[in-house]
Amino acid sequence: MSPEQPSAGPTRVTPPYYAVIFISRLASDTAGYDQSAQRMLQLAREMPGFLGFESAREEVGISVSFWRDAESIANWREHSEHLQAQAEGRKRWYDDYQLHIARVERSASFHRDPG
Amino acid sequence: MSPEQPSAGPTRVTPPYYAVIFISRLASDTAGYDQSAQRMLQLAREMPGFLGFESAREEVGISVSFWRDAESIANWREHSEHLQAQAEGRKRWYDDYQLHIARVERSASFHRDPG
Repeated sequence: MSPEQPSAGPTRVTPPYYAVIFISRLASDTAGYDQSAQRMLQLAREMPGFLGFESAREEVGISVSFWRDAESIANWREHSEHLQAQAEGRKRWYDDYQLHIARVERSASFHRDPG
Repeated sequence: MSPEQPSAGPTRVTPPYYAVIFISRLASDTAGYDQSAQRMLQLAREMPGFLGFESAREEVGISVSFWRDAESIANWREHSEHLQAQAEGRKRWYDDYQLHIARVERSASFHRDPG
């Protein structure tokens, strides 16, 4: 989350840690979706065990949040505002989604040297 | 990969299975990148243990491939054409990337009923 690493992937964290992979297709009624997504990211960043977040959307949206352990994810899943957003998502925003909760066993990263 | 499920996520597969999360930022020289990415997906789909693939790109590109087990991922990583593509990626296409290999422990999915 620092200005030095806006991408916020947990590349400096040594496995094991956890990833929540959320893959979704939006429905036609997305009123309020962007605002809620921003609010959820803001809240997630304040949760204990949050390590990072990345997202992109074309035909599908893929977001990956990284967490210290499974308990951190369980706590975030049960956050009251998050529960409301999840319900709203199923009621209006998503045509479909898949969620995968995974324990990262190995990681690697690459950064091009300048010049 | 069927026409009925073009999204190709392994939503019908029961955990545990594996996910390879690849998050990248492209460099300025992306000549040949799209062609190579398409070829790699074609090859991956033919590999034993391949379960599915999803990708999206905005500021960052996120691709997630799903696999039966860690051995399937290791075999794909060492595929000769894939090794060439990996080298080309580090030489030219990517400014940076992070790779997370993770064991999916739990999954869920949602599909909106029509009408």
